[in-house]
Amino acid sequence: MKILLPDTVPLDPALPEGWEAVVVDARAEIPAEHHDAAALVVWGASRRHLASAAEHLAELQLVQSLSAGVEGILGAGFREEVEIATGSGLHSLTVSEHALALLLSLLRRLPEAREAQARHEWSEELGGLQPLHPEGRVTSLIGARVLIWGFGQIGQTLAPVLGALGAEVRGAARSAGTRAGFEVIADDQVMAALPEVDVLINILPATEQTAGAVSREALAALPAHALLINVGRGATVDQVALREALEAGTLGGAGLDVTDPEPLPAGDPLWDAPRLLITPHGAGGRPVGADQRIAQNLAALAEGREILHAATR
Amino acid sequence: MKILLPDTVPLDPALPEGWEAVVVDARAEIPAEHHDAAALVVWGASRRHLASAAEHLAELQLVQSLSAGVEGILGAGFREEVEIATGSGLHSLTVSEHALALLLSLLRRLPEAREAQARHEWSEELGGLQPLHPEGRVTSLIGARVLIWGFGQIGQTLAPVLGALGAEVRGAARSAGTRAGFEVIADDQVMAALPEVDVLINILPATEQTAGAVSREALAALPAHALLINVGRGATVDQVALREALEAGTLGGAGLDVTDPEPLPAGDPLWDAPRLLITPHGAGGRPVGADQRIAQNLAALAEGREILHAATR
Repeated sequence: MKILLPDTVPLDPALPEGWEAVVVDARAEIPAEHHDAAALVVWGASRRHLASAAEHLAELQLVQSLSAGVEGILGAGFREEVEIATGSGLHSLTVSEHALALLLSLLRRLPEAREAQARHEWSEELGGLQPLHPEGRVTSLIGARVLIWGFGQIGQTLAPVLGALGAEVRGAARSAGTRAGFEVIADDQVMAALPEVDVLINILPATEQTAGAVSREALAALPAHALLINVGRGATVDQVALREALEAGTLGGAGLDVTDPEPLPAGDPLWDAPRLLITPHGAGGRPVGADQRIAQNLAALAEGREILHAATR
Repeated sequence: MKILLPDTVPLDPALPEGWEAVVVDARAEIPAEHHDAAALVVWGASRRHLASAAEHLAELQLVQSLSAGVEGILGAGFREEVEIATGSGLHSLTVSEHALALLLSLLRRLPEAREAQARHEWSEELGGLQPLHPEGRVTSLIGARVLIWGFGQIGQTLAPVLGALGAEVRGAARSAGTRAGFEVIADDQVMAALPEVDVLINILPATEQTAGAVSREALAALPAHALLINVGRGATVDQVALREALEAGTLGGAGLDVTDPEPLPAGDPLWDAPRLLITPHGAGGRPVGADQRIAQNLAALAEGREILHAATR
């Protein structure tokens, strides 16, 4: 049995007896000599690559994505019997780390410190004795009320880290309850909760339901000192309303790793909004634990067990 | 019984029966009508304030500092019977948070992202698909070998947070062993350990022994990709050697919340060193849990129990 690995990331999964791995160009069509593959790993694949796999891999049993989102694979036309596995969880640590980097940078006023440094200025305002909770500003996670909207694997990885730093963390997801030890409110309770939120962390996927979820109304409902972090998808935020809130001072700051569209056009006025950090979709981009996940799902396939993180087709 | 509270931080400790609190100017001499005080809380006090307290508070039993370091109090000439308590632990969360902010900002290349943002540039280099462990660079805590030099309350608060983000954390302190679940090496083993360190976090106090501990030799022993964070004291780092290492590219980057001297003079060439973040001693500066600590130590005093975090005189 043959598994095709993409050339876009170094992989070396432990293979079950009788399997061989072949590395193929993830941007090109599948070469004819590999049309007998039984499994395909997808990372940074072109549409052409996926379409040719769907068309030609007649013996295909499993498509293992290394991304959490599998829209492209679902739309590529694979036969119904082919199992599709998402890479859910492979980006939890990296995206959590990036969300925390953006958030702590805003809280600890590092962009302002950087500007003072460029002026060779030891700013008395940014150091020395200071109030823990200054009026109209959030400068520490200690006691900060954090809401993580989209409380999946990434949110559940990030939440305890924020908790360890002193934050009061809740999640928001489709259904309310308790997850990973944290209180989770339902999506339709978010608007009512926002006035009591100091930090809103958006990890929403892009779906029809989440489009523009962080709306003009949602931004207006947040306190004027609140910070917004978006490591989900750009389309979930009303970007014009966000810029206007930052310009008007009705939002404390924002850190965006995603925008709509991407790349953000050079002429977009969002680039220059005050108290805004933009990173170019760099939070994830490097699956962690991919070899193990591939090995687990090949073993599941070989033993007729259910695969991990099967996508809903 | 009277306890004097400083006007430099809002305090409202629960007092034992029979105690009253009075707020005094921490920069001025103690007013004559308060020379009967039995306890004094110190935060941002002037030398004059401490000297007048040592001279005039004849009934003084306890000096409760809200700082971890109590050099100023120890040198003020208090009678030997007066108990002196440090504020150890009151800055663990804030300093940990700041160390993490500096470190993540360097790892996730936020200063470079900020520069790209100023140019309205969606940098392909900083986002998209990327290696987890690029050659010659550390870009994530996942698998990063972190050494925390000075493994007291702050280090022990920071270590599990770094661990939760995927780092392999060790401490270094006067004596080797295991502390808070982490391996701790002895100070005299640090030089030998440095070649295997990706991130060195310095939380050393300023003492005769620690002066220049992060020496030219120590900096040279670190890998060229290594990052240095200093949230301890400026005098523990050879600042000229640090600047030269950054300029020569033999150190990956540094984040300093402390320098020697402070403020760093405007003419110091350190300000312009590459891959260096400077914040103006803002990591701590806000005691957390001070009311509770004061109440605990007043109760200990009232009941004749040992006070918490008594300073070695």
